Amino acid sequence: MLRGLTLNGLGAVENEERFIELAGAGGFRAVDVDARGLIERLGTDGALNKLQQHGVVIGAIGLSVEWRAGEDEFRAGLTGLTEAAAAAQSLGCTRCCTYILPSTDAKPAHFLALATRRLRVCAQILGAFGIRMGLEFVGPHHLRTAWKYPFIWTMEETLDWIDAIGEPNVGLLLDAYHWHTNGLASDDIKRLQAQQIVHVHINDAPNLPLEAVRDNDRLYPGEGVIDLEGFLRGLQHIGYDGIVSQEVLTPDMPKDKPEQLIRRSKAGFDRVFAAAGISK
Amino acid sequence: MLRGLTLNGLGAVENEERFIELAGAGGFRAVDVDARGLIERLGTDGALNKLQQHGVVIGAIGLSVEWRAGEDEFRAGLTGLTEAAAAAQSLGCTRCCTYILPSTDAKPAHFLALATRRLRVCAQILGAFGIRMGLEFVGPHHLRTAWKYPFIWTMEETLDWIDAIGEPNVGLLLDAYHWHTNGLASDDIKRLQAQQIVHVHINDAPNLPLEAVRDNDRLYPGEGVIDLEGFLRGLQHIGYDGIVSQEVLTPDMPKDKPEQLIRRSKAGFDRVFAAAGISK
Amino acid sequence: MLRGLTLNGLGAVENEERFIELAGAGGFRAVDVDARGLIERLGTDGALNKLQQHGVVIGAIGLSVEWRAGEDEFRAGLTGLTEAAAAAQSLGCTRCCTYILPSTDAKPAHFLALATRRLRVCAQILGAFGIRMGLEFVGPHHLRTAWKYPFIWTMEETLDWIDAIGEPNVGLLLDAYHWHTNGLASDDIKRLQAQQIVHVHINDAPNLPLEAVRDNDRLYPGEGVIDLEGFLRGLQHIGYDGIVSQEVLTPDMPKDKPEQLIRRSKAGFDRVFAAAGISK
Amino acid sequence: MLRGLTLNGLGAVENEERFIELAGAGGFRAVDVDARGLIERLGTDGALNKLQQHGVVIGAIGLSVEWRAGEDEFRAGLTGLTEAAAAAQSLGCTRCCTYILPSTDAKPAHFLALATRRLRVCAQILGAFGIRMGLEFVGPHHLRTAWKYPFIWTMEETLDWIDAIGEPNVGLLLDAYHWHTNGLASDDIKRLQAQQIVHVHINDAPNLPLEAVRDNDRLYPGEGVIDLEGFLRGLQHIGYDGIVSQEVLTPDMPKDKPEQLIRRSKAGFDRVFAAAGISK
Repeated sequence: MLRGLTLNGLGAVENEERFIELAGAGGFRAVDVDARGLIERLGTDGALNKLQQHGVVIGAIGLSVEWRAGEDEFRAGLTGLTEAAAAAQSLGCTRCCTYILPSTDAKPAHFLALATRRLRVCAQILGAFGIRMGLEFVGPHHLRTAWKYPFIWTMEETLDWIDAIGEPNVGLLLDAYHWHTNGLASDDIKRLQAQQIVHVHINDAPNLPLEAVRDNDRLYPGEGVIDLEGFLRGLQHIGYDGIVSQEVLTPDMPKDKPEQLIRRSKAGFDRVFAAAGISK
Repeated sequence: MLRGLTLNGLGAVENEERFIELAGAGGFRAVDVDARGLIERLGTDGALNKLQQHGVVIGAIGLSVEWRAGEDEFRAGLTGLTEAAAAAQSLGCTRCCTYILPSTDAKPAHFLALATRRLRVCAQILGAFGIRMGLEFVGPHHLRTAWKYPFIWTMEETLDWIDAIGEPNVGLLLDAYHWHTNGLASDDIKRLQAQQIVHVHINDAPNLPLEAVRDNDRLYPGEGVIDLEGFLRGLQHIGYDGIVSQEVLTPDMPKDKPEQLIRRSKAGFDRVFAAAGISK
Repeated sequence: MLRGLTLNGLGAVENEERFIELAGAGGFRAVDVDARGLIERLGTDGALNKLQQHGVVIGAIGLSVEWRAGEDEFRAGLTGLTEAAAAAQSLGCTRCCTYILPSTDAKPAHFLALATRRLRVCAQILGAFGIRMGLEFVGPHHLRTAWKYPFIWTMEETLDWIDAIGEPNVGLLLDAYHWHTNGLASDDIKRLQAQQIVHVHINDAPNLPLEAVRDNDRLYPGEGVIDLEGFLRGLQHIGYDGIVSQEVLTPDMPKDKPEQLIRRSKAGFDRVFAAAGISK
Repeated sequence: MLRGLTLNGLGAVENEERFIELAGAGGFRAVDVDARGLIERLGTDGALNKLQQHGVVIGAIGLSVEWRAGEDEFRAGLTGLTEAAAAAQSLGCTRCCTYILPSTDAKPAHFLALATRRLRVCAQILGAFGIRMGLEFVGPHHLRTAWKYPFIWTMEETLDWIDAIGEPNVGLLLDAYHWHTNGLASDDIKRLQAQQIVHVHINDAPNLPLEAVRDNDRLYPGEGVIDLEGFLRGLQHIGYDGIVSQEVLTPDMPKDKPEQLIRRSKAGFDRVFAAAGISK
């Protein structure tokens, strides 16, 4: 497993080039950045050099297509998706992720039908560039009733949706926070196969009843009550050898300097990986 | 368009062989029967002879697979589906239909994900035998709230679901009753292409506010308030040349003799087809 | 059926704007042009106005993606395809076509495997924009042995390939020349369903044994020996209501003025459509 | 990796029940048998007991559908496939395999188009029962020209075909003999991902030029010149944890007693697994 960072939880980092430098200097080996933007600013060779120089790879790009709104918005994003996919491929990145809100004001079956077709098209385009697509289920209970109807929030539902999409390159983005708020255990991960997981997010949660845990109130790995040892042991058990990226969403941007926050993150990773008996 | 019958609305017909005889004698050219059962009783040649002798073809078979319950029930039906599809093909039948209940106690997005995969498998098996699969949306308002959550009941939703299923041999079963209770007009049919329609049901509705029309309270074609002239003109306009089968669901089985009910049906067909200017 | 033109056979037409003017003035209702280029020069509104002003629609765009060479070339074309598809859609065009060379120096089964995946991706992208993809089989015998191994040249093979691609929006481009050089008859068209045909090319062939007919030695409709009456009657019979575009490939560009060549084309269309009893 | 046997190379074993007993007694943990036949003779519980009692699981069943001949033969096998898949699932077997002849008398592109559609249907049916489908490429050079045209024989071609089939549950059956006769190395396996391999065959080859190695002239593992150490190290490297089944095709059935042949097989497995540093 490769330890990675997202910008969420790092405070005021100037830009993604600086993010790359800080991540590398802080002992991380992967960053979730916008491959296409990086190439636009640095060129492909410049971007590759930047990454290599700081010893990091790109973990995942975000799915830029608007698949939740109208058909026009969806179509308007497809050219950008081909460009983003080509950019990601040229920088060696093989993952693209999006998340699923657990409730919706739309009629949920119809919305899922539309989204199935749209995400299939996205997966097909990404697949042409050798990129896998990860779907992140979102567990916090308050979001399950934030909109009128329930949508999708469990791992099982998400796996069934992935089957409905039906493309070989689609899998899960497994986030420790959503695993925790779904009440899942290490054994639930052990029932998966490694290739069903496209990407992993790590973070921690406050000591609250599961129903009260809020989505944007996350802690750094090892600073909360999530069983991250079990989480990582589960991943290790099934042979997951991809990236584990920190994602700490907070109500306000942390005020500490990025260097400090990365040190704190590093300490957290070290603690939980050691607890899980994972040396690398 | 070929005029056909289902057993619904014909009273106490002894069996499907008798149904074939009555339909042919009554001036109808298609019957919706169980092809497999017919072959089991008469043999393939016997079944073909029976149909030919009475001048009828099989309109559509019903989808025998249980796609709405658990995975085991679903799988248990697949062998029967291959046999039913082979039987249908050997009797020249190219349509297989199922209907969609408009509400559900299950989480609707998850149920749609499961059903998308299952119906895709059914379509793939049917497709191997040259058979198309028709999905019937169900319009009556009381069924939209009969279970906890809304599911799928409009033509647009159904077309979007067909896209999500993603197999070339899937289309609509368009039923006049559901078209009526959805408040659709002739123009809504004219926006379709003929090949999007796998099968058509015809019947009529009492003169009630749309919200009060109940699913099993149907009338014979031409005896109610549905704009069947507009319905048929729409189908004619787009070049639909398939089958139009009567389906009259009633609270109790009609007590008249089947011969009488078929004459009544024939008179209704004659009236509404004439009104639509369709000679054959 | 809408009568249309391609640039092949019209001599030295300055550009596609001029082509639109000439086609409209000459009594044709469709042109096969590059929608994206038109929009780049005139803007979307300007392009729409131009087409409307001259009473023509766009018949089909060409598939811009290189699907026959290496993987890099293929991928490099996908951004352009999304742009071309968006352009076509914004001008009301719903067809995109490519042709199949009947022999190949590559191992043919492997090449077909690669091409199946690539054309599926193209169809999926086009489908997101409501555009169908037409595959044109190429009949002339000399091309069947122009490269080392036989590939695909019959209508049946092409239909089977379309099934292998497996997307609902893929069909045939039926060209009279290839129908003729395959020795096909009107009945072969009558066995099709209208929706299996995405686009139609019309032209004529010299009075030679089929084996000697060369691909780029075509005549104007009605000036040769192809049974265009049977060809058009077949299309009429199955209810094809799309576009029939002239495509006359010749060893050298015709020297007559475009206006003359279009009059000649118009006379040919009039003759063969009249022979087939098709008034519009 | 689980060590398994096929009947090929074991001489005159009375039946599959006896095969299960011999394999278990001989220290093997998997057998490739006909799950459906086993259940027909022993019942599901009886078959499960038999397997459990002798400490073996079913490695893979063979694909019973005739996908290489006409459409009628293909369709006629689909009912049997659903039954075979259900039987396999009920006995815990998750693999079904077929092989690809490297040349063909049919036009190869057309044959691949037909076979792509047919194998996709098979994969879809198997997938409904949680079963993966493995395609075995066949390397011996004499078979590449045994029929008129080249078809598919390399690993790369097969992977490209699997992409063309496009179902998530399709992968390779990797046979050491075909890997050897294709001139592949350990590194070629290391470039794969474990989930691309559905099943593995092991055996050995005589010391002949690659071009002269014949398909049915195989040796027991460790008795020939195939780099089985590199083969197994490659599988180990990518985390393959499935089954490795011996398949020794010979011109005549070996005359030794099955017990002797299994001991010989066991000694070969022990030797090559030890050489590869694989303890279990």
